[in-house]
This record gives sequence, C-alpha cells and structure tokens, in this order.
Amino acid sequence: MNDMSSPSLCAEELSRLAAEVARMGGLAETQVVDAVEGLIRRDSVQASALIERDLHLDAQQVDIERRAIALIGRYGPEGADLRRAVSAMKMAGNLERCGDLARNIAKRSLILSPVEPKGIMRALERMGRIAAGRLSDVVDAYVGREVEQALSIWRRDEEIDDHYESLFAELLELMRRDPASVGDGAHLLFIAKNLERIGDHATNIAEVVYFEATGLDLTVERPKWSLPDAVVTDS
Amino acid sequence: MNDMSSPSLCAEELSRLAAEVARMGGLAETQVVDAVEGLIRRDSVQASALIERDLHLDAQQVDIERRAIALIGRYGPEGADLRRAVSAMKMAGNLERCGDLARNIAKRSLILSPVEPKGIMRALERMGRIAAGRLSDVVDAYVGREVEQALSIWRRDEEIDDHYESLFAELLELMRRDPASVGDGAHLLFIAKNLERIGDHATNIAEVVYFEATGLDLTVERPKWSLPDAVVTDS
Repeated sequence: MNDMSSPSLCAEELSRLAAEVARMGGLAETQVVDAVEGLIRRDSVQASALIERDLHLDAQQVDIERRAIALIGRYGPEGADLRRAVSAMKMAGNLERCGDLARNIAKRSLILSPVEPKGIMRALERMGRIAAGRLSDVVDAYVGREVEQALSIWRRDEEIDDHYESLFAELLELMRRDPASVGDGAHLLFIAKNLERIGDHATNIAEVVYFEATGLDLTVERPKWSLPDAVVTDS
Repeated sequence: MNDMSSPSLCAEELSRLAAEVARMGGLAETQVVDAVEGLIRRDSVQASALIERDLHLDAQQVDIERRAIALIGRYGPEGADLRRAVSAMKMAGNLERCGDLARNIAKRSLILSPVEPKGIMRALERMGRIAAGRLSDVVDAYVGREVEQALSIWRRDEEIDDHYESLFAELLELMRRDPASVGDGAHLLFIAKNLERIGDHATNIAEVVYFEATGLDLTVERPKWSLPDAVVTDS
C-alpha cells in the first residue's frame, strides 16, 4: 500500500533523485568533452581513463532507475511528481547512452593511425564542441527546469546534422582518393555518427525537460516527421 | 489521490497495455524483416512503404508511455504491477528505436547503386535474419513472460557481433580495392551497424523481461563490462 501520508518525504526523495541525475549529467558531459579532446590531442591516457569511467555511468543509471521505481511504489505520486520520477529514468537512459557513444569514440581514437587528415580532424573537433555544448546546455535546462532553454536546444537540432553531412562527404572523398585511408576513414565516419547521435540525445533530453514541466509531448506538438526528411543519413 | 479501490481495473488496464506493447512488437519485427528483404531484393516499393509505416511506431510509443504514466498515476501500483507498467515504457522505447534503425536501412537501400557485391549482400542477409530473429524471439518472450527464453537470448548476444566484425573487415577490403565502391561501402557499413544495434536492443528487451519478472537487473547480476571488451566496434 502506498504511503501517501508523507508528501514532504516524497518531495525530498524526488529532489535527491534529481540531484543524482544532475550528477550523472555532469559525468556524461565530461565523458563527451574528454572523448573529443582525447581524439584531437591523440591522448591515449585520457581515452583509456574515459573508457574505465564509463562503468560509473552504467551504475548510476541502474541506481537512478531503481530509486525512481522504489519512490513511485512507495509514495504513489501523481501529476508533476510522477512526471519528475519518470523523467529521472528517461534522463538516466539518455545519459547512459551518451556515455556509451563517448566510450566508443575513445576506443576508436586509440586505434586511429598517427597521421590523420588535419582538415577532417578540425571539422570533427567543431562537431564535437557542438555536441558537447548541446548536452551541457540541456543538462543545465534540466537542472534549472528551464523549459524555454530546452525548447531552444530542441529547435536547433539541424545544426549538428549539417556538420555531419559535410563531414560524411569529405570522408568519402578522402577514402576514394587514398585507399590507405579507408581503415581510419571508416572509424572517423563512425566517430562523426556518434557525435551526431549525442546531439540527438540532447534533443531527446530537451523533450524530457518539456514533458516534465508540461506533461506534453514535443514530438506530438510539432512532429519531427513533419520536417523535411531528405537526408538519408538521419536515422 | 490514487484510486486503489479498483485492483481489478488496474489489472485490466495493465493487460491492455501489454497487448498494445505486443502489437507494437509485431510491427517493429515486420519493419526489421522488411528492411532486410527490401535491401536484398532491392525492392524500393517495400522500402518506401516501410519508411511511411515508421510513423505508426512513433505514435504507438507516445501512446504506450502516456497510458503507462496515466495508469501509474491513477492506481498507484506497487511491486509486480508497477514493474509491468514501467516495462511497457521501456519496451516501447526499445521497439521505437528498432523501427528507426529499420527505417534508416530502408533509406540507405534506396540510394545504393544497383551493382552491389553479392558476397557482402549475402552476409548482410544472414546478419539481418539473426537480428530479426532475436527481436522476434524476445518479443515472444515478453508476450509469454518467458524469463528463461529471455535469458537465453541475452546470453547469445555475441553471435551477431561476430558477423558484424567479419563484415566490417570485408567491407573495408572492398573499399580499399575499388575506390568506386566507397560510397556504397559506407552505407553498407552503417546498415551492418544498424543490424548490430537491433541485436543490442533485443538484448535490452531481454533485460526488460527479466526485470519485469524478477525485479532484478541482469547487467548487475552478470555485468556486461565483465565480459571481454577487446572489440572496438562495440559501442
């Protein structure tokens, strides 16, 4: 039987849960920033440390989910409180996946050859900064419950896709010109894709912030699929 | 205030929710099978129809999440009932993502050149069958609440990864040998990656089935990160 006699206890646990999500957000941001830095500076120590640290994100996700479900089972929250608990689970899912993508970038950066194409690395660095910036901004929006900020991040989701498109074309051109670059080129393609996916998760997180505040679904309000869909590399 | 006077109403709504998840599972399976068939048979009509149908999966996910949250808010379920509602949300998230990956395969299959390497297409077909089979089996396990079946699917997650590794190597070899194949090769790399990801979602779904039945977390019981982690292409 739910313990509904303790609304203040429920509010207190919800705050602790949101703080745990914020902490996980901080770690996920760090992982993404380090993955991009490790790639650009070819810092294998940084990349290896990042791969180790990913375990913490996995553990935090499990912990946040457990606590959210336990809280719902104990207090039977409704309305905004229930949305806050569900949002914590959704946040944890998205942040854990960002961590996986950062770890995958680090793993690939460890096996790239030392001579990589400078122009492409600069483009990846720009793309990495945008992805990390989106993630950081949207975690801020979650922490501050800033719905307008979340909306503005959500609306800017094409920016990173444009970078991805042009990088994709550049990488194919390089691989056509120089068969010796095909191995590195393939890993760089996936690294670019991972950064684009991190940008998508920032978009998802913006939707979580909006849902938590309003109970509404952004993709229904303004469906993604009503936008132009000509770009085949969108997944 | 939760309406806890109606346990039978709650059970009835939970059954309807699970049925809606099962239906979504059926559509997601179809999408994956069609994506692989459309790719192998170069059937652009099938691929285009699949891309259209993805909207249904998106709508089903939104609907399942809303209903699960409304149900939790109304009845304040605990224990196994609460896990069943949470599992419905997690199922919907994984199935929607499988649909996205199938749609992405279809989009890429539409722009592949007509002459694709036969050996590689056969390898992709095998991989596609494994991925679709895993998804179908694990949806069965969800519907029948077959924990043992879910566990056996969960344990076999390396099989598809092995296929992916050898296909990855073959594709790079092709792209090195024939620069004209680089464009198709890149799309085929991503198609293979998408199939591997669908296999990963089947693994996630197996974890959901286990969690729903036991309240335990498979990744904590036998952490994924305790397994060999030498393969860089794992994300």
